[in-house]
Amino acid sequence: MLGNIQVKDRTDKVNMPPGTIMHIGEKKAETVKITIIDYDENNFQERQVQNIEESFQFKQTPTVTWINIDGLHDVSIIEKIGQHFELHPLVLEDIVTTGQRPKIEDYETYIFIVLKMLSYNMELNAIQSEQVSVVLGKNYVISFQESAGGDVFDTMRDRIRTSKGKIRKMAADYLAYSLIDAVVDHYFLILERLTEQIEDLEDELVEASSNETGTHIRALKRELIFLRKSVWPLREVVGALARTESDLVAKSTEPYLRDVYDHTVQVIDTVETFRDMASVMLECYLSSISNRLNAIMKVLTVIATIFMPLTFITGIYGMNFKFMPELEWQYGYFFVWVVITVITGGMLFYFSRKKWL
Amino acid sequence: MLGNIQVKDRTDKVNMPPGTIMHIGEKKAETVKITIIDYDENNFQERQVQNIEESFQFKQTPTVTWINIDGLHDVSIIEKIGQHFELHPLVLEDIVTTGQRPKIEDYETYIFIVLKMLSYNMELNAIQSEQVSVVLGKNYVISFQESAGGDVFDTMRDRIRTSKGKIRKMAADYLAYSLIDAVVDHYFLILERLTEQIEDLEDELVEASSNETGTHIRALKRELIFLRKSVWPLREVVGALARTESDLVAKSTEPYLRDVYDHTVQVIDTVETFRDMASVMLECYLSSISNRLNAIMKVLTVIATIFMPLTFITGIYGMNFKFMPELEWQYGYFFVWVVITVITGGMLFYFSRKKWL
Amino acid sequence: MLGNIQVKDRTDKVNMPPGTIMHIGEKKAETVKITIIDYDENNFQERQVQNIEESFQFKQTPTVTWINIDGLHDVSIIEKIGQHFELHPLVLEDIVTTGQRPKIEDYETYIFIVLKMLSYNMELNAIQSEQVSVVLGKNYVISFQESAGGDVFDTMRDRIRTSKGKIRKMAADYLAYSLIDAVVDHYFLILERLTEQIEDLEDELVEASSNETGTHIRALKRELIFLRKSVWPLREVVGALARTESDLVAKSTEPYLRDVYDHTVQVIDTVETFRDMASVMLECYLSSISNRLNAIMKVLTVIATIFMPLTFITGIYGMNFKFMPELEWQYGYFFVWVVITVITGGMLFYFSRKKWL
Amino acid sequence: MLGNIQVKDRTDKVNMPPGTIMHIGEKKAETVKITIIDYDENNFQERQVQNIEESFQFKQTPTVTWINIDGLHDVSIIEKIGQHFELHPLVLEDIVTTGQRPKIEDYETYIFIVLKMLSYNMELNAIQSEQVSVVLGKNYVISFQESAGGDVFDTMRDRIRTSKGKIRKMAADYLAYSLIDAVVDHYFLILERLTEQIEDLEDELVEASSNETGTHIRALKRELIFLRKSVWPLREVVGALARTESDLVAKSTEPYLRDVYDHTVQVIDTVETFRDMASVMLECYLSSISNRLNAIMKVLTVIATIFMPLTFITGIYGMNFKFMPELEWQYGYFFVWVVITVITGGMLFYFSRKKWL
Amino acid sequence: MLGNIQVKDRTDKVNMPPGTIMHIGEKKAETVKITIIDYDENNFQERQVQNIEESFQFKQTPTVTWINIDGLHDVSIIEKIGQHFELHPLVLEDIVTTGQRPKIEDYETYIFIVLKMLSYNMELNAIQSEQVSVVLGKNYVISFQESAGGDVFDTMRDRIRTSKGKIRKMAADYLAYSLIDAVVDHYFLILERLTEQIEDLEDELVEASSNETGTHIRALKRELIFLRKSVWPLREVVGALARTESDLVAKSTEPYLRDVYDHTVQVIDTVETFRDMASVMLECYLSSISNRLNAIMKVLTVIATIFMPLTFITGIYGMNFKFMPELEWQYGYFFVWVVITVITGGMLFYFSRKKWL
Repeated sequence: MLGNIQVKDRTDKVNMPPGTIMHIGEKKAETVKITIIDYDENNFQERQVQNIEESFQFKQTPTVTWINIDGLHDVSIIEKIGQHFELHPLVLEDIVTTGQRPKIEDYETYIFIVLKMLSYNMELNAIQSEQVSVVLGKNYVISFQESAGGDVFDTMRDRIRTSKGKIRKMAADYLAYSLIDAVVDHYFLILERLTEQIEDLEDELVEASSNETGTHIRALKRELIFLRKSVWPLREVVGALARTESDLVAKSTEPYLRDVYDHTVQVIDTVETFRDMASVMLECYLSSISNRLNAIMKVLTVIATIFMPLTFITGIYGMNFKFMPELEWQYGYFFVWVVITVITGGMLFYFSRKKWL
Repeated sequence: MLGNIQVKDRTDKVNMPPGTIMHIGEKKAETVKITIIDYDENNFQERQVQNIEESFQFKQTPTVTWINIDGLHDVSIIEKIGQHFELHPLVLEDIVTTGQRPKIEDYETYIFIVLKMLSYNMELNAIQSEQVSVVLGKNYVISFQESAGGDVFDTMRDRIRTSKGKIRKMAADYLAYSLIDAVVDHYFLILERLTEQIEDLEDELVEASSNETGTHIRALKRELIFLRKSVWPLREVVGALARTESDLVAKSTEPYLRDVYDHTVQVIDTVETFRDMASVMLECYLSSISNRLNAIMKVLTVIATIFMPLTFITGIYGMNFKFMPELEWQYGYFFVWVVITVITGGMLFYFSRKKWL
Repeated sequence: MLGNIQVKDRTDKVNMPPGTIMHIGEKKAETVKITIIDYDENNFQERQVQNIEESFQFKQTPTVTWINIDGLHDVSIIEKIGQHFELHPLVLEDIVTTGQRPKIEDYETYIFIVLKMLSYNMELNAIQSEQVSVVLGKNYVISFQESAGGDVFDTMRDRIRTSKGKIRKMAADYLAYSLIDAVVDHYFLILERLTEQIEDLEDELVEASSNETGTHIRALKRELIFLRKSVWPLREVVGALARTESDLVAKSTEPYLRDVYDHTVQVIDTVETFRDMASVMLECYLSSISNRLNAIMKVLTVIATIFMPLTFITGIYGMNFKFMPELEWQYGYFFVWVVITVITGGMLFYFSRKKWL
Repeated sequence: MLGNIQVKDRTDKVNMPPGTIMHIGEKKAETVKITIIDYDENNFQERQVQNIEESFQFKQTPTVTWINIDGLHDVSIIEKIGQHFELHPLVLEDIVTTGQRPKIEDYETYIFIVLKMLSYNMELNAIQSEQVSVVLGKNYVISFQESAGGDVFDTMRDRIRTSKGKIRKMAADYLAYSLIDAVVDHYFLILERLTEQIEDLEDELVEASSNETGTHIRALKRELIFLRKSVWPLREVVGALARTESDLVAKSTEPYLRDVYDHTVQVIDTVETFRDMASVMLECYLSSISNRLNAIMKVLTVIATIFMPLTFITGIYGMNFKFMPELEWQYGYFFVWVVITVITGGMLFYFSRKKWL
Repeated sequence: MLGNIQVKDRTDKVNMPPGTIMHIGEKKAETVKITIIDYDENNFQERQVQNIEESFQFKQTPTVTWINIDGLHDVSIIEKIGQHFELHPLVLEDIVTTGQRPKIEDYETYIFIVLKMLSYNMELNAIQSEQVSVVLGKNYVISFQESAGGDVFDTMRDRIRTSKGKIRKMAADYLAYSLIDAVVDHYFLILERLTEQIEDLEDELVEASSNETGTHIRALKRELIFLRKSVWPLREVVGALARTESDLVAKSTEPYLRDVYDHTVQVIDTVETFRDMASVMLECYLSSISNRLNAIMKVLTVIATIFMPLTFITGIYGMNFKFMPELEWQYGYFFVWVVITVITGGMLFYFSRKKWL
């Protein structure tokens, strides 16, 4: 999971001049996929194009245009977009440098947003993170993904096609909001997965905590650390967008942005609650280790306390002194058994009263 | 209790367009119950209606109208209210999506408030949470509950009926305040319950802490985590309402809102104090486990330290060497007993001085 | 001490309408005692009255009037004061509801202040808390106490009588300040008591920590939690008063209010320092338990390591094999003793080098 | 060190009217020493006077006058200064009440500053604290110390005498700054001393941690708690002075005040870093105790695991059954030794593979 | 690493007047190296000079001039620069006093910035810190380093020479930004190194934690404490520069400063994440020590529980009583072996069910 922190990739760029557009990060997609959706309340067209230049005609139209780029490794495409849409070199640099912290920058003619999309990889049993960049301009939205993260935006495309929801009636800012909302909604899937993990752990703690339990709690804590690192800056981003005074965001979109802001707060609340719970579970686990040690030591002590005196008694009558009167008694042996029984019984009574048994 | 976090229900909605009004959460009521109370200082009428449309006539009247909906699963009712009272689709979505974080939204013509009502379920031995949404408009208040949470608002209805307190003389904002106050007051019942739990735990710690004690402390801590998660946002909500500049809240209602705000702060203070106490109890419990281990080990060490040398002595005189002069002595056996007694006495004296006995 | 949190009393009021004036809390005084002091620089009169109505004449006089009520259970008196001095119903409710959080409310014609007076009850060995409410109006101060907390305000009365300090030259705001100052000064007595407790605990830790030590640290921590809960809101109250823009507080009184504010900050600083110290002491105590366990285990290990081999040796020569040459040797027995001595000596040397002895 | 918290002294004053000028604290100096230094760029005079009245003539002169009072127990001197320089009674009270929190008060015609001067007492092996009060007026600075803390201000006097640095060219605010700077600089000496303590502790932890180590860490933590309590309010004081809008502080002095502010921040940074380090050392120490327990228990377990089976074997052949064929064998005894050797060897191999040896 | 805190060096200066320019810190360079680079979009010249005076001619030219000083021990050079460029004495003092906290000061005609450059010294296996001071004036930048930290600024020089990036087209503020960016970029190299350390530690924890592991975690924690201490103030510095309203920083440079600000935030985020991870690893390590103790004690208990009863049995039949019927039985010895086998088997079955084996 440490790979998610992406420090290593970042260091490749240490000696580059700022504004260098060089793809940093794993190459997650084979080919770059460019999809253009252009719509207003009555019209809709969708195209998959080879050359990014085909999308440039839409810049001036009053309809809402959504250009989606899947795959960041072909830097020339990003540069062309940058030139045509007059994006700042640092924006282009941030788009291709995955491992960014979620952020929002207002460049007056457009707003640039970096998000982290999280998904749970069942095979690797780990949370995975993908960078999604969104440029919101007047009448257009350009989104950049590392790979064709189909599921997330597909439902949105459907909604635009079928004119479901109010998206077709709204401007580009609502489209940008919808993209953010889709990303944030996926955080709840991660939370659901963590909820299951916590419930399993609780059962483990109640039924039979083992050395494994420590490892599981640690794994949970690490995932929470990672999730927390992603979601706190996300909240700032969405909050800044909801409070923005940019002309690019209409008054009527604000309630929606506040709504998605509320969702990020809810995610944070839940992450913090899970962290508290994980700490409580760890304390519980540590005290259960100590309790088990106590239980083990009680067994040892009971055994030793019973058998050491008995062995001592047998030792006494195993001595070879010439003059040991007891040895001669007819009932000596029987008497020793009586003593042994009394001692054992007394000990057991003592320990059962002390609740050690 | 994890169910309270309601992440799972939330994930069902991940792919829905925003503003989708779909009931999320457990269906807690069989049928939807709609109650209308309309009053001013001199007049009062109360009705239970089948069709929500019957309530719409009250929107324009200058009297205060309180429409209470118990049961959220019949989405069509919520939608009709939404249309008639011109509520934002997101408001309707929040009403039916239980598992919301307490929040307040000012939509100028009305204020929308989401609260969490907590109650202690004696059977499940757990805190339960129910969402209460309140829409405060000019001259009307609409409240939505998941089930007919009778107790909470019943006393309020009585007060309006019997014109007890000043409620009949006041406007809709005072009615909304009264609903919030009723919800917040119930938090004190939870705190009372936790106070008892803490007192029991303290007795347990002093008298006889067992492995159970750890589990009890953990249960307490979990309840506190949950309570904390509910009450912090509640404070923000009430605080925002007390400071609002909306025309819907009269100047004269502000002291009351500040009062209920003070109550939420008091709840938070108490929860934080309980958290600190639970931490102190845990520390105390952990040190008591360690102390008990020490006590167990002292028993073991005392037993071993006394009997190991004694057994060694009997071992010596149990050897079969041909030439062992002591064995021949007449008082050899007696002498061994003297040695044993002296060693045992010395050990006991040593250990009692070390306060191990 | 949990009684101090006063959650239980509070729940009795859950179903009451807001503004209900019902005494909540222990009845600490038998009869209500009403004292009136009226003074300016040259004149002074002091009266103890039966009927609260006798005090009402002073409301209009330009002299400073201090009405002190000891005992809150006679609600009718509070209500009469409320009517005459035109106090808000919520103020009256707060006065009789002990268990309030310290707070300040500015009602324009008067300022309402709730304080917690702490005292150390030597018999119960616990910090006790009493609610003091102060209403500061133009030319008058009304103070409410749960019982005749003589000591606190008696010195103040003396000062007014004997015209000591500058109190007789000052207005009502200085009188209110003096009451607050008297309450805050008593916190230092609690701190002194805690200082002693800490010093005792430090001696205990250095000399001989026992199982009791854990209980003592826990008791200290609980008192600190309680003190902290009282003093933080007190600071807010005094700070708000020092910064108030109300006409009721003269510019010349501000340095005095800042001074008492500094005192509350000093109390908080000390409480926080004590908390840190208590944590350090707990860590120290826990490490001392572990160290003692190590010491116990060293004893056990030394004993076992010495006597187990020796017992084995005696076991060897206690066997009954027909052909055991050593048994026949004349110096066999002597030789065994040599071996035993060498082993014991070697072990002791080894353990003393390891610093286990 | 608890004496530094000075709660006890403070409680002597609980029943005094505010503004009472009564010396609180240890009497650290025998006689009060009054030194007057008066200078401008060209002139300089220095006098030690008996009567404070001799200093009053300097109040009106345009030259900078520094009146330094060592010893606070002669309250009449303080009162005379108060009258002549028109200081607020609370200022005089604060000057003689040592145990104040560092603070700054702007009284328009003068600024009053309370500082804590820390020094390390080598004999007592403890940090000691002395209160320094500074009154900065137009053209004059009055400083009050508990004792003749020579070292601190002596270098400053030298600088003024010899006109070193720019102090002679600057006004009274620069003199006040220089006094504060001298006090803050001494904090670095304490930090140096703590650095040594930490380095010693680190060596102790690496080489041979003993029960003493815990005590040393605790001593360090206590000193850090105390230092922290002193330096945080100091930062506020210096920060407030650097940001002040008072006419008494010239624009040109601000960079110097910001500089000393930076120093206090640096001290805080270092204290916080040391606190973190102390926590890491404590964790390290606790884990080393546990590791040592494990080591001890390994020794015990190895011994017991080897000798218990062996002793059992010797026990077998020590039995007195009539029919025990092995006892009759010629090589029975030899065979037992073989078995013993094999068992011992096997155990040792097992334990060395488990890395217990 | 404690040397990095540089308290000791600082104390040498305690008695110096403020503004004293005296080199504090290790002398890291033999000779002072002065490099001057002067450029605009079309022209470029680079010179290494002996006398600092040669650089003064560039002060008035409209081209951007970068004067870089490697080596701070020759105070006269610093003083000459100070005189010519009219720098405040405190600036000169800060330049030569290494061990400063990163800071920014706006002196209107120039901005003074102190940074900490971190590098990982592979030989010492420790993070090393070097102070870099930057003076940004109109058309010139003066940078001061402790030693010729070639790598860091060399790439920048190349970029200027070869006109790579946009640096040649930009003004002095962009040059200053580039220097800061170069310093911040090096923090990522440290983070990369720490990532490796954490990955190694995680392997250690999973595979075989030893006493060493504790030491490694502690080393990691210490490095994080140190890194944190450096990077938090750095963030403040860069943030202040990005928000500055000084004329010296052009509007067009702001996005770049915000970008480097984002990088510092990213470093902080990562450090905090690493801190959380280190804590989780420590908890994991502590629980693994406890688990190992449990494992050891289980071995001991199993051994003792099996062999103590057996030894007792052999002790019984080793007694020398005259009348012990079992000893006479022909199958007595055989029967004892049966008993022994049954007891051992039962014990093993019991322990394997308890999962102790």
